[in-house]
Amino acid sequence: MAKSRFEYVKQFERENFLLPQTHIVIRVDGKGFHKFSQHYQFEKPNDVAALSVMNKTAQVMMQQFPDIVLAYGDSDEYLFLMRRDCDLFERREMKLVSTFASYMSVNYLLQWNLAFPDKPISAERIPTFDARAVTYPNHQTVRDYFSWRQVDCHINNLYNTSFWGLIQNCGMTTTEAEEFLKGTVSSDKNEILFTKCGINYNNEPDIFKKGTVLVREYLDWKNTLEQELSDRQKQRQQKLRKKAEIAQHHVDIIKDDFWVQRPWLLN
Amino acid sequence: MAKSRFEYVKQFERENFLLPQTHIVIRVDGKGFHKFSQHYQFEKPNDVAALSVMNKTAQVMMQQFPDIVLAYGDSDEYLFLMRRDCDLFERREMKLVSTFASYMSVNYLLQWNLAFPDKPISAERIPTFDARAVTYPNHQTVRDYFSWRQVDCHINNLYNTSFWGLIQNCGMTTTEAEEFLKGTVSSDKNEILFTKCGINYNNEPDIFKKGTVLVREYLDWKNTLEQELSDRQKQRQQKLRKKAEIAQHHVDIIKDDFWVQRPWLLN
Amino acid sequence: MAKSRFEYVKQFERENFLLPQTHIVIRVDGKGFHKFSQHYQFEKPNDVAALSVMNKTAQVMMQQFPDIVLAYGDSDEYLFLMRRDCDLFERREMKLVSTFASYMSVNYLLQWNLAFPDKPISAERIPTFDARAVTYPNHQTVRDYFSWRQVDCHINNLYNTSFWGLIQNCGMTTTEAEEFLKGTVSSDKNEILFTKCGINYNNEPDIFKKGTVLVREYLDWKNTLEQELSDRQKQRQQKLRKKAEIAQHHVDIIKDDFWVQRPWLLN
Amino acid sequence: MAKSRFEYVKQFERENFLLPQTHIVIRVDGKGFHKFSQHYQFEKPNDVAALSVMNKTAQVMMQQFPDIVLAYGDSDEYLFLMRRDCDLFERREMKLVSTFASYMSVNYLLQWNLAFPDKPISAERIPTFDARAVTYPNHQTVRDYFSWRQVDCHINNLYNTSFWGLIQNCGMTTTEAEEFLKGTVSSDKNEILFTKCGINYNNEPDIFKKGTVLVREYLDWKNTLEQELSDRQKQRQQKLRKKAEIAQHHVDIIKDDFWVQRPWLLN
Repeated sequence: MAKSRFEYVKQFERENFLLPQTHIVIRVDGKGFHKFSQHYQFEKPNDVAALSVMNKTAQVMMQQFPDIVLAYGDSDEYLFLMRRDCDLFERREMKLVSTFASYMSVNYLLQWNLAFPDKPISAERIPTFDARAVTYPNHQTVRDYFSWRQVDCHINNLYNTSFWGLIQNCGMTTTEAEEFLKGTVSSDKNEILFTKCGINYNNEPDIFKKGTVLVREYLDWKNTLEQELSDRQKQRQQKLRKKAEIAQHHVDIIKDDFWVQRPWLLN
Repeated sequence: MAKSRFEYVKQFERENFLLPQTHIVIRVDGKGFHKFSQHYQFEKPNDVAALSVMNKTAQVMMQQFPDIVLAYGDSDEYLFLMRRDCDLFERREMKLVSTFASYMSVNYLLQWNLAFPDKPISAERIPTFDARAVTYPNHQTVRDYFSWRQVDCHINNLYNTSFWGLIQNCGMTTTEAEEFLKGTVSSDKNEILFTKCGINYNNEPDIFKKGTVLVREYLDWKNTLEQELSDRQKQRQQKLRKKAEIAQHHVDIIKDDFWVQRPWLLN
Repeated sequence: MAKSRFEYVKQFERENFLLPQTHIVIRVDGKGFHKFSQHYQFEKPNDVAALSVMNKTAQVMMQQFPDIVLAYGDSDEYLFLMRRDCDLFERREMKLVSTFASYMSVNYLLQWNLAFPDKPISAERIPTFDARAVTYPNHQTVRDYFSWRQVDCHINNLYNTSFWGLIQNCGMTTTEAEEFLKGTVSSDKNEILFTKCGINYNNEPDIFKKGTVLVREYLDWKNTLEQELSDRQKQRQQKLRKKAEIAQHHVDIIKDDFWVQRPWLLN
Repeated sequence: MAKSRFEYVKQFERENFLLPQTHIVIRVDGKGFHKFSQHYQFEKPNDVAALSVMNKTAQVMMQQFPDIVLAYGDSDEYLFLMRRDCDLFERREMKLVSTFASYMSVNYLLQWNLAFPDKPISAERIPTFDARAVTYPNHQTVRDYFSWRQVDCHINNLYNTSFWGLIQNCGMTTTEAEEFLKGTVSSDKNEILFTKCGINYNNEPDIFKKGTVLVREYLDWKNTLEQELSDRQKQRQQKLRKKAEIAQHHVDIIKDDFWVQRPWLLN
């Protein structure tokens, strides 16, 4: 029963090492969260407590993985931007995505049970996430990826606010509300919200309109290239990353300001 | 704020569709389970209750994913063999591995809390798994992969039984036991166990020596090719898969018998 | 000027090792052969001398690469089936496809100049080929790939024979012939050829209807698994492969006969 | 004989689309050029006429592929840098590498026969090239890749000049020369060349010491982003690329000057 006789099967394994010096974004998406939100009776259109569970989960992820420099989340999805020189798991794609999906799911469950001790997660309806890794070669493409998600957050939220406004304030059925909104553009929905539901969309909370941004804030950051550091300095930087405060914002990340103020995000 | 302006970033996503008609094996591995087992005080060399949590978790996985035809586990790892015609997530690698890692972790946590209500999982030490997908083109290579893992199970268990036998029965320190076993082959370890610790390795439980096999058992199985079935027949087959009893064994899967008796595993 | 300072750039190279124990088919396709055939004034619908250049080129390829067990060609394309245990260039995809494309192109040029000393290849219109590698996990899929190409050869040839028949025998323009054939099925085209052009398609040469098959013929072949051979025996096998006569046929490779008679092709 | 029955085999094809907005470098390498140079009796250590064939071949490649902005060659290898926005063959890796290998080989053969009408390429020893594609995400990594190759050119040439100097000027055998140079560093070899062979390495031709650089020179270049151009403007740019003079240099491409003077190379 020689060990070696079967070991050749390892040759069938394939690895994808993500291209060095590209910006890795790992995106996690809740699986079947529409049914999940029904099962655990989320408030509509937005459940502040449930959103808070997502955000706390992402915060825990940033503590567990110091290579994450920025996270952006909305609804049941979160994007994690790794620092450009990140060498976690030698940048092996399967290891990265399966580990992130695993941590995200377990952390979410634990945060949920902390937040809702009266309705803990039951085996019939569990929170799970899939994950993908995308690499972006430069600043502009990274920023455009985050912009894309924030625009999407806005579009979805405007629709959902209008949809549930018509149901909750005007007594429409879901079918009627859907029909009513068909073909409307943003300005139409703003108008409908105001005249039909008495809601000024501008006054809606930013957490709904803009999603949530988690960012490692450095007080005195110096631009130093990874490759020019000694091992000792690298360890020191790693420590600084772990210690850096993780701040939560609900701000615009499409315009330049956010990025200009935080040069460490992309360098 | 046009949606389309940023949407081009989707072009940077890459998919790996696993080769059709190959046998997909998804392997999950516990992350940091050495420390996990210390934190939750596993019995050494084998903790029957903790092994049972792993096996129940894998059983739940097979209920949740009817495409799994066979699972084999030992220690903190499990292999899941998908039926050859499996088209789950269109065979997209990232989706498969991140989903399996996510479900495995959450299911494990829930099974753990059921089994050990007095020491539930705490946030300081969480169970997580990574996952990888490997494709095998034919019967022999699939079987050799499973054989490799079962041989590995035997080798590890013989070592661990000897190591902890020397510590628990002969009062050695871990360093002394390690030193004592250095350079020994299987027959040496059997001899040591018998003379030093009064343990006849042959009498050790099969769950430790052979690991655990979970298999969907079909009473009356007919070899029908997927592509020759109508959609209605496919749905019927899917139903049969879901209903088929999942049996747990601790048997040899290296020799032919196990596979010859279950022709549905590889066809 | 230390060498090492820049050598890190090698890390950006990516390799795709084709899955072991799958059947590799390398397919080469002529680039812009429509214009090539006009420039060098091919006869229509089929130019026997030009086809012969393709077939001789493929024959040379089989002499240069003993791992090729079978080749099938039609028009400006050729498929090369490698023996299942082929380990050429460690099965690296880029190396395989770029090398095959390179050899194919140069060999074609040399064969062309031998066949047509009066109209040698000129720099304005050169013969080039691209190449792709596809892996098939089992016998059925390999055979179906070759069947697909032979069916395609038949369909194209029936169309081209009808199209040029109408032009050459009935004095139609290309536009008229195209219009005439629009919407016709195989039986219609057979009928048109017979009644309009006096051509019985069944009597057309097999090289046009079935394409060309090149196969290494072994007189006394024994089924021996690669992995069970000593290095010396492997070298002997390699020699036998090089020496085996390469036969040219224009036969059906869709039905079983061709493959049953040559068990070495897929084992 | 339905076409569709077999067409499913196309599903087994795999494509690798190279990451957008990265710099693609395609590198071609002569296969077996050591034997090739012996067969066609190259002068040692450098054969100016044979080098000229390589350089003319690369020049033809740049005319045939307007997406190439820069080429660098030495010995039997050439690097081709594509403009960053290159979308040739939709950036499909197999198509790119097989096409480049094919064109390179045929062009080389034709250039050879033009240069050496008295010793044309014969079928016994043909010039072939393999090709690989590497993507670099930013300016620094592209430049470092080219620097790596130019440093390599220098190291190889210094060695070859010394090696053949000792043989041709001092009457050593190849074994003696090899032995003599073992363990020497650059300064040793410079010294040996000067004292033993009367050669001042600094006075050697730059084509040997620095290799050959081919670059599309634009007289009045404006930095315009591809995505901001209309289709008409894109076509105009493509025309300008085709018309731009291709200049040949033998200069340092490691320092900044070369790149600073040609901002179009990396933008």
